[in-house]
Amino acid sequence: MYDTNFMTSTTTKFDFQKYAATRRALVEQTLTNYLATPTNAFEPGILWDAMRYSVLSGGKRLRALLALAAFEAASGIEVDTCENANQLGIQSKSFQLDKQLEPTLPLACAIEFVHAMSLIHDDLPCMDNDDFRRGKPTNHKVYGEAIALLAGDALLMHAVQILIDEAGKSQTNDRLLKVVAELSRAAGAPGMVGGQVIDISLTGNASTKDKQTAKAHLEAMHSRKTGALISFCSWAGAALAGADEKQLAAFRRFGEILGLAFQITDDLLDVTGDITTLGKTPGKDAKSNKLTFIGLIGIDESKQELARLEKAALDELQLTGISDHRLAALQAILQYSINRIS
Amino acid sequence: MYDTNFMTSTTTKFDFQKYAATRRALVEQTLTNYLATPTNAFEPGILWDAMRYSVLSGGKRLRALLALAAFEAASGIEVDTCENANQLGIQSKSFQLDKQLEPTLPLACAIEFVHAMSLIHDDLPCMDNDDFRRGKPTNHKVYGEAIALLAGDALLMHAVQILIDEAGKSQTNDRLLKVVAELSRAAGAPGMVGGQVIDISLTGNASTKDKQTAKAHLEAMHSRKTGALISFCSWAGAALAGADEKQLAAFRRFGEILGLAFQITDDLLDVTGDITTLGKTPGKDAKSNKLTFIGLIGIDESKQELARLEKAALDELQLTGISDHRLAALQAILQYSINRIS
Repeated sequence: MYDTNFMTSTTTKFDFQKYAATRRALVEQTLTNYLATPTNAFEPGILWDAMRYSVLSGGKRLRALLALAAFEAASGIEVDTCENANQLGIQSKSFQLDKQLEPTLPLACAIEFVHAMSLIHDDLPCMDNDDFRRGKPTNHKVYGEAIALLAGDALLMHAVQILIDEAGKSQTNDRLLKVVAELSRAAGAPGMVGGQVIDISLTGNASTKDKQTAKAHLEAMHSRKTGALISFCSWAGAALAGADEKQLAAFRRFGEILGLAFQITDDLLDVTGDITTLGKTPGKDAKSNKLTFIGLIGIDESKQELARLEKAALDELQLTGISDHRLAALQAILQYSINRIS
Repeated sequence: MYDTNFMTSTTTKFDFQKYAATRRALVEQTLTNYLATPTNAFEPGILWDAMRYSVLSGGKRLRALLALAAFEAASGIEVDTCENANQLGIQSKSFQLDKQLEPTLPLACAIEFVHAMSLIHDDLPCMDNDDFRRGKPTNHKVYGEAIALLAGDALLMHAVQILIDEAGKSQTNDRLLKVVAELSRAAGAPGMVGGQVIDISLTGNASTKDKQTAKAHLEAMHSRKTGALISFCSWAGAALAGADEKQLAAFRRFGEILGLAFQITDDLLDVTGDITTLGKTPGKDAKSNKLTFIGLIGIDESKQELARLEKAALDELQLTGISDHRLAALQAILQYSINRIS
């Protein structure tokens, strides 16, 4: 198994803030480029305005970072993941970063399009009917329900188009087709959309099942609603880097476990979180009789579950056979997902 | 140019009813197979019910037929397009039809998924707010708005997934990737979704532009809202058959012209159609101050435009260099689109 001391020391030395900041800047720039309004006659600019409004509204870019980190870990190219990068004499990192992430930036952006689409459709009056997200009016409050609906539809197709057109410049067709097919599963009925339908059927039914069945049902919902896309990020980043089947299986499971841990943390924050840092009112889940891990197994057991999941996720990373200093970003993303306060 | 006498005689001999019936049966069966509810634990059956409800609700299958006909025309394999097929001693046609259409049935089904999705989202209260379609309650009237919205999202991703997983069994990766990328454009912002946004911005604005600009705007709307997917059918069917670039350009333009002719016919039927055969109330366009070809250029000029488009579409078919008897199904689809009464 992995060397805990070494891992801890890597984690301590690794500057995740810096790692994330440089990559987020690249992702933001690329997203902006991919969402420029075309110059066709009668082009409906409002559609592109609405797409940009939700995609470029901040957000942690956790999914994009995960895809990039999986790619970097599996690709074997040298990256500035150590704080002593400058001491190694590596110059003009930002230019090199562009180049080395080029094969996977379209993937990271495609994932952010799908994620933004899910938020736009989720916020609609017929779904969660939310007026605010990240402190800003939701898409349909600004552009109206019809445009918001269509902007979501457009983002879903834009994800596929960008992935093929842009990643196609540096990827083999074989690899690219597998990734697009997997994205359609992660975003569609077998994944995200199916999970949302399970969520709808569970809401308000928190007390109608025995605890064991309810927990399995809850996990099935989360594994599809948020887990499928998060797991896709990890798997697809590694796939575009040419990881082998054994590695890909480990990357996929790492993403699955990370997704579940992310969700339990979400449920915990709804109980223990602070309204200022959280950016939304805590306690919403309990009020709406929503089935959550906390409601089912309590705070203490949820925290124990998180610790178990963290170890299991780290074990999966070790199974990739990739050296520890290359896994530092993925380890940091895992720890950020569990220890975040918003 | 094409031989009018020969074409007319081919058209007379060609049994489009029979051609369409055998292919529709295959499409219905394949759609049903592709929409079977998976047997996962906690699978949300209602999502698949909603997807099946709209996809398997009849409809002309014009788009699927067009994709199949383009494939058959371009593939060069022998098909039972002549009424004297039996006299040629060709036996057990239905089995052969399965086999010869195998490479393109997933494409035909994927297109029907995208079309069904567009109808579901179009009918939602925030869009056209329609309670009935084809004489049945609309999807959201049966399953609720949230499930209808999600069923549409799922169908969009299912189209991509089926196309890659199923057509991938008999297609080269290179060809398949081009078709998936083109589908994402035809269905997304550059195509169908963009056209719907133009439509929203035009509704109620029929009288605010000069006639020339209004006609150009109307054509831009239709070329994206319905034309892009219809044109994709024709192009993609031929692409999966391995047509060359020159042929593909002609197939694409044939589809573009067919799409526009289909739309002008729609506008004409709203004025001249009969409520019984039409299955909906005519005169709706004028009442809602909708910008239409009839409102802009009148009935007579619209009919002349249709005749011009028919000739232009037939010219495009001749440019493919494919022999006339192989083009009979495409010619019949064109004539059906223009002469239909519903």
